[in-house]
Amino acid sequence: MTEPQQIDEADLLHHGDAEVGDGLADFAVNVRSNTPPEWLASRLRASIADLAAYPDQGAARCAVARRHSRAVDEVLLTAGAAEAFVLLARVLEPRRAVVVHPQFTEPEAALRAAGHEVERVVLDKDFTLDPEAVPADADLVMIGNPTNPTSVLHPEAAVAALARPGRTVVVDEAFMDCVPGEPESLAGVPGPGLVVIRSLTKTWGLAGLRAGYLLAEANLTARLAAAQPLWALSTPALVAIEACCEADALNEAEQWAVELGEERTRLATELSSRGVYVVPGARASFLCLRVPDGLGIRALLRQRGYAVRRGDTFPGLGPDWLRVAVRDRASNDALLEVLSDLGI
Amino acid sequence: MTEPQQIDEADLLHHGDAEVGDGLADFAVNVRSNTPPEWLASRLRASIADLAAYPDQGAARCAVARRHSRAVDEVLLTAGAAEAFVLLARVLEPRRAVVVHPQFTEPEAALRAAGHEVERVVLDKDFTLDPEAVPADADLVMIGNPTNPTSVLHPEAAVAALARPGRTVVVDEAFMDCVPGEPESLAGVPGPGLVVIRSLTKTWGLAGLRAGYLLAEANLTARLAAAQPLWALSTPALVAIEACCEADALNEAEQWAVELGEERTRLATELSSRGVYVVPGARASFLCLRVPDGLGIRALLRQRGYAVRRGDTFPGLGPDWLRVAVRDRASNDALLEVLSDLGI
Repeated sequence: MTEPQQIDEADLLHHGDAEVGDGLADFAVNVRSNTPPEWLASRLRASIADLAAYPDQGAARCAVARRHSRAVDEVLLTAGAAEAFVLLARVLEPRRAVVVHPQFTEPEAALRAAGHEVERVVLDKDFTLDPEAVPADADLVMIGNPTNPTSVLHPEAAVAALARPGRTVVVDEAFMDCVPGEPESLAGVPGPGLVVIRSLTKTWGLAGLRAGYLLAEANLTARLAAAQPLWALSTPALVAIEACCEADALNEAEQWAVELGEERTRLATELSSRGVYVVPGARASFLCLRVPDGLGIRALLRQRGYAVRRGDTFPGLGPDWLRVAVRDRASNDALLEVLSDLGI
Repeated sequence: MTEPQQIDEADLLHHGDAEVGDGLADFAVNVRSNTPPEWLASRLRASIADLAAYPDQGAARCAVARRHSRAVDEVLLTAGAAEAFVLLARVLEPRRAVVVHPQFTEPEAALRAAGHEVERVVLDKDFTLDPEAVPADADLVMIGNPTNPTSVLHPEAAVAALARPGRTVVVDEAFMDCVPGEPESLAGVPGPGLVVIRSLTKTWGLAGLRAGYLLAEANLTARLAAAQPLWALSTPALVAIEACCEADALNEAEQWAVELGEERTRLATELSSRGVYVVPGARASFLCLRVPDGLGIRALLRQRGYAVRRGDTFPGLGPDWLRVAVRDRASNDALLEVLSDLGI
């Protein structure tokens, strides 16, 4: 399915934010445009007045519990999904850890940094999950849903089928709020050994704030909390978490997800009609493309002022692959026009 | 010097922020009054507009390096001093770890949470440092300077005398900016095995923001960074670090430290004249007091609307000890009046 590929640990640490800057139009980082919205920004600005006090997680933790119909002690707030990966890597003691690729590289990087060996299961054809591809004795399995960078949404049943006694299954749902109604989410489904990681970063434009959380059995959240620094989240991050769990915010996110879906379909259809291979079934805020000499196309796009994410640093992809954010219609049209100029 | 005392790990996790609330006048948390100042708050509010981008540590790290005349790779930014303790506990592998008490309990709590055994060296008479009290083969020594909760400032030479080949000495200088001119600081003194931790929390009223840093040899900062979550500090925290390293901010902090010193002397003199034992040589933003039945006094003060920090959860102190923040003159006078009413 892909060419032979060597990915070392340095590659795992490459992220879209290293691709932007220099005034480039950003199709590399998957953060929603025009965010944070003003209603949220104004609450964050107001929180600056309260910084002299130490952060208090109480209200934000309750809000997350309510939003996902979980018990409060099943919620662990984290300084972004990145901290969740580090805490899991530190606290869990897997004998056989498996990361399902292609996917966001931080889970594997965090496991390796904590001294664990990591096995890669690289998904085959169209990157859809086959639970049988995971070794039966793997006691830690990490998977993304929907998956960065493929944009593939695995069925809830397929992910749930990974669960078995003695195994921890970590589902990175950082992009799940791109899916209207979240029908395949496991966030509201308590299960032994099941950990769901969520993020506010992409939908709410809060990459700079470090706000996320995970949902797991209470005994695991307690063990993870013990490994966390005191006062791990800032007051503005806690304000954001609480605000983004409110009904109005959830409605806004849902509406955006619907519009995102329409624009994603339009962009994918247009690219496909030009002969670009677009990984089918995309459900997140980006598309995963295969074009001959993708790295060369990326370089030419940079010369024209457009940053897209290289795919070759993702295990399971290679130099022909690119990840392209779905932005607003005008921005997407501008990108399509430049691609036309490049013969695509 | 103190009564026999049992301090368990739960006690180590007790902090001043748990003592406030319910409208109590706060003499328990050592954060400067009326902070953050408006010039800083306005810059933090402005940073909310940039949250969609991932945080970039470059400018803040350079600012810290310049402020302490250190190389950039000797600076590690941390989400508060609390994260620095957790990172050190995770990365260092001490055979014999010693924490010099009484001091802030987080360093010991972080070491224990990471699975290390901890030996306590409890300072004798007036809590001044005798480097010889530390076992010669201790390969990790953690000390505060000036020390929370005693307010004692150890001479630079005494702290530096702890250094020896194969030993890491961690100096928590979270309150060093209470000392005008910082003559005893080791922040600007690179040395093998020397780690200095700093905080913006107290002087700038940023407890809710999680902003701090440590200074150490480059090979250690690199190892600590590898254990840190990706994007460990938020953009507002980075803006604060950069801002508080500017010359105007350093001048403001210096001026405040001078005024704090005058008020601290006045409060200490008044309390001493009433027969309260005040640990001599106080140089931080609080006083450490010994009064018969300190815990009882604390309970009575709470009834009157005043929160002071219990001392009995600090190894080396006991139920007769209290830590009292030095606030503005009017607030201190109000506290003194209530103490009068209580017969002190």
